[in-house]
Amino acid sequence: MTRPTPLPSDLEIASAATLRPVAEVASDLGVAPEHVEPYGRDVAKIDLAAAANEPRGKYVVVSAITPTPLGEGKTTTVVGLTQALRRLGSNAVATLRQPSMGPTFGIKGGAAGGGYSQVVPMERLNLHLTGDFHAITAAHNLLAAAVDNHLHFGNELDLDLRNITWRRVMDVNDRSLRNIVVGMGARADGLVRETGFDITAASEVMVLMTLATSYQDLRARLGRIVVGYTGEGKPVSAEDLGVAGAMAVILRDALKPNLLQTLEGGPALVHCGPFGNIATGTSSVVADQIALSHADLVVTEAGFGADMGAERFFNVKCRVGGLEPDAAVIVTTVRALKVHSGRYDIKAGRPLPESLLAENPDEVRAGLDNLRAHIEIVRAFGVSPVVAINAFPQDHDSEHEVIRELAAEMGVRCAVTRHVAEGGAGAEDLAREVLAAAEEPAAFIPTYALEDSLTDKIEAIATQVYGADGVDYAPAAARALATYENAGFGELPVVIAKTHLSISSDPSLMGAPTGWRLPVREVRANVGAGYVYAIAGDMRTMPGLSRHPNAERIELSADGTITGLS
Amino acid sequence: MTRPTPLPSDLEIASAATLRPVAEVASDLGVAPEHVEPYGRDVAKIDLAAAANEPRGKYVVVSAITPTPLGEGKTTTVVGLTQALRRLGSNAVATLRQPSMGPTFGIKGGAAGGGYSQVVPMERLNLHLTGDFHAITAAHNLLAAAVDNHLHFGNELDLDLRNITWRRVMDVNDRSLRNIVVGMGARADGLVRETGFDITAASEVMVLMTLATSYQDLRARLGRIVVGYTGEGKPVSAEDLGVAGAMAVILRDALKPNLLQTLEGGPALVHCGPFGNIATGTSSVVADQIALSHADLVVTEAGFGADMGAERFFNVKCRVGGLEPDAAVIVTTVRALKVHSGRYDIKAGRPLPESLLAENPDEVRAGLDNLRAHIEIVRAFGVSPVVAINAFPQDHDSEHEVIRELAAEMGVRCAVTRHVAEGGAGAEDLAREVLAAAEEPAAFIPTYALEDSLTDKIEAIATQVYGADGVDYAPAAARALATYENAGFGELPVVIAKTHLSISSDPSLMGAPTGWRLPVREVRANVGAGYVYAIAGDMRTMPGLSRHPNAERIELSADGTITGLS
Repeated sequence: MTRPTPLPSDLEIASAATLRPVAEVASDLGVAPEHVEPYGRDVAKIDLAAAANEPRGKYVVVSAITPTPLGEGKTTTVVGLTQALRRLGSNAVATLRQPSMGPTFGIKGGAAGGGYSQVVPMERLNLHLTGDFHAITAAHNLLAAAVDNHLHFGNELDLDLRNITWRRVMDVNDRSLRNIVVGMGARADGLVRETGFDITAASEVMVLMTLATSYQDLRARLGRIVVGYTGEGKPVSAEDLGVAGAMAVILRDALKPNLLQTLEGGPALVHCGPFGNIATGTSSVVADQIALSHADLVVTEAGFGADMGAERFFNVKCRVGGLEPDAAVIVTTVRALKVHSGRYDIKAGRPLPESLLAENPDEVRAGLDNLRAHIEIVRAFGVSPVVAINAFPQDHDSEHEVIRELAAEMGVRCAVTRHVAEGGAGAEDLAREVLAAAEEPAAFIPTYALEDSLTDKIEAIATQVYGADGVDYAPAAARALATYENAGFGELPVVIAKTHLSISSDPSLMGAPTGWRLPVREVRANVGAGYVYAIAGDMRTMPGLSRHPNAERIELSADGTITGLS
Repeated sequence: MTRPTPLPSDLEIASAATLRPVAEVASDLGVAPEHVEPYGRDVAKIDLAAAANEPRGKYVVVSAITPTPLGEGKTTTVVGLTQALRRLGSNAVATLRQPSMGPTFGIKGGAAGGGYSQVVPMERLNLHLTGDFHAITAAHNLLAAAVDNHLHFGNELDLDLRNITWRRVMDVNDRSLRNIVVGMGARADGLVRETGFDITAASEVMVLMTLATSYQDLRARLGRIVVGYTGEGKPVSAEDLGVAGAMAVILRDALKPNLLQTLEGGPALVHCGPFGNIATGTSSVVADQIALSHADLVVTEAGFGADMGAERFFNVKCRVGGLEPDAAVIVTTVRALKVHSGRYDIKAGRPLPESLLAENPDEVRAGLDNLRAHIEIVRAFGVSPVVAINAFPQDHDSEHEVIRELAAEMGVRCAVTRHVAEGGAGAEDLAREVLAAAEEPAAFIPTYALEDSLTDKIEAIATQVYGADGVDYAPAAARALATYENAGFGELPVVIAKTHLSISSDPSLMGAPTGWRLPVREVRANVGAGYVYAIAGDMRTMPGLSRHPNAERIELSADGTITGLS
């Protein structure tokens, strides 16, 4: 059992770091100076021209078992693993999502990673960075203004006012904007109608940016965005409204990934940040393409457990981007496996019970079904899994041993990693396993063919990935699926928006639930981004602030120093 | 008479320019490399530490006669004059406002300057630049979210729901957001109330940024922002809501001015962009302080005619920033003086009539009262005026001669400038006059003392600057003034929001109107920014898009090239 002295806070560790000039970081990665545009001293944008036609590096995704509401450390693992790989002489790079600024002022400060496995500069990462989220907000809202402007000037395209799906976005936690009425006032102030705001991370433009492979593709996808439907049910697009080119112009610089660094000075590409529930929850294809052009090994993250993030990573991101994954890390913790024993009643937003900390290998064993299911999910894609035991100071060796036994039994590589407390040095065992796994021959197999019907795709994910017995559609969902097939959206991949706290759609079901059916309440289409999503749960797309949000603790001193960010 | 071949478009000229590395531009200005943070290759932010305690340069403001709706070329004159001054060996720098992005997609593309007197890179200038407007939007809207969050959690501060003055902002032309109802939906979605959005340029935070002199001052002003009033009429501030520190953190980098360059490679500091009607319409104090610390001569701009922009520049910006102006350029055009003859019925948004182009020195003479009034306005501040005749290709020498005669009669320096067609070379005569004027002893005298009552201040501007016979207050305006005096806001300077198309408050009155009274309909307080404003006209704070906005003509090509921006 390890009981080190308590770590300093993430902000303390990040603030104490001496950052390398970003030009050196880029040069280590192998990106030519003409493709590096500095944004401040420690951040740069990388030109899309830095991508080669063919990847040279191995491609590793970090996924996890079904997490507790606290999260099990995927991002810290991406950073720690990358740091370790560089220590072992591999030119490794981490590719990650950018944190959303709004929630930084909500419940807690942001961060990418934690302890001695973080991406820095932490303050810029959590605030504006290079303004990409702002650009996405502006492009999204220009389209919204064009919709209402079109209605104001006579609605030539015959948009059905009761069927306009395009809302507005803002990167702020503001519950009062969820449902609003616009166009109040006089005749010159537009048409009165109900609509609302989502947080920018939930914008279709955000996920579209992660899936666009070039400026040309960006422009084309923007044009295909559907803003609503005519009285006869015909989709109306951003192209129809004539503003897709202007949106692309607003997004031009935002399509260039941002280069930051790990605490150990290695490269980290941070780009975009779509939601993990209604969207793919992955960073961008272009960042990974650039990374794979230069690095020996690219480590990226897919949101939530392998049922959620990894499934979408494989079926949507890899397929759209023509990316071939070589290995998948499954982050596992003792505490989460204990929760999967079913002996705890865990509620989101509350701390885990103290009793979880007692040495109890049997309780870990009782939760192993969840890990087993995630290993099988990854294997079904033809990709080598590696189990990463993300060690906490309160863990006991006997508990780690139980996990190792399962891995051995299933013939899966496994390592304990202590990157939060020890940085890259603590993840070297994991790095060696990942290097070995990535060398194994991989044969990537998606869950479904794009030519399959939308219902077949949803069924394939529900039964083959989640282990459901089948799918039940609410009448509105069935109607929407028929509409989308008719409108020609049938060949899009699908995303299923469900809870991330269970492999099933019921957040209270731990382990590997069986004997359940997936209830699809509603189906929507992000035609521009390029997928249809089925909603099987409550999806909040605009968070609120708490009674006393973190904003009250954040302060700027006279010399410009920031405190309270985490 | 000059009839050159037609000029290429602003975008063509800007695109053809070869930009100097921004580090060289900074070095020429005299800013040390440690204070220069590159944002891309051709833009940098300048650290506030680059400002010295004492200014070393002369300070020149560019104002104008009462303009036609097309504008008479103040910005081009700032740029052309700075280019000319550098040609003459003076280390001159231009300080300018950043154009607002929203309107770029509205009626026309943006720009700073025109022809061969522009600030570049034009595309970045007109889009996100370094994200300052986005940061201002985010800080403003965090406060708005905090207001509604406070109401949602019980309204401990007893805000009167009918007297909440803080709205939201966005940098987009979107008429449907002018008046909205928020908080629709369920109990968890906040309180239902009516509010709205303004464009970001109209945000109090925008003008606050231009008047803040340090991080400490920024933080203090943010805390003083009034968001509304209690049932008993007591103001409630951002400090009361506890989020002023977080707002300051969001704005930290935005308080650093942006260094760009003129087409001739000289330095231009571009920073913030408050409205010229309800706000001061000037760029920031900190940019000018930095500029004055290094340059021989700083040329800045004040919005609209001298009655509007120069008055606020002197009475508000110079006083708040402790800045001492040395000379004021009054930009004059033949076409505007002809309009001031009163013989034309000019409408905003429509082209000027062809008949204006005929040689007609008498018509110019008939409009001279307007120029005379602006010269007297500038002189009353104890500052040397210089008349700049901004020559158009259609002008006739006889028409210029009429203007020269008035200047001679009044003992005012005067020069013709052809900077749009010829760049700095065309403004060298003007530059010589400005250098001479700036060497004359100046004794800056504000129009009123800060200790005067608010009504005395409004009256002083109306009678002494505008030439009104007096002021009439609507009952609500009189009540508001009494409330502000009682609340302790009586020592703030004032801004009068009126039309810029006449020295009077009636846009149809040309020349130098007499025999009229200023009707003040409403009075509001921007307590955080630090001024009270009286409204004497219709002030639109959220523009709309036209039927076929410029957004429809803006396009991104596959190689990332932007077209249609102007």
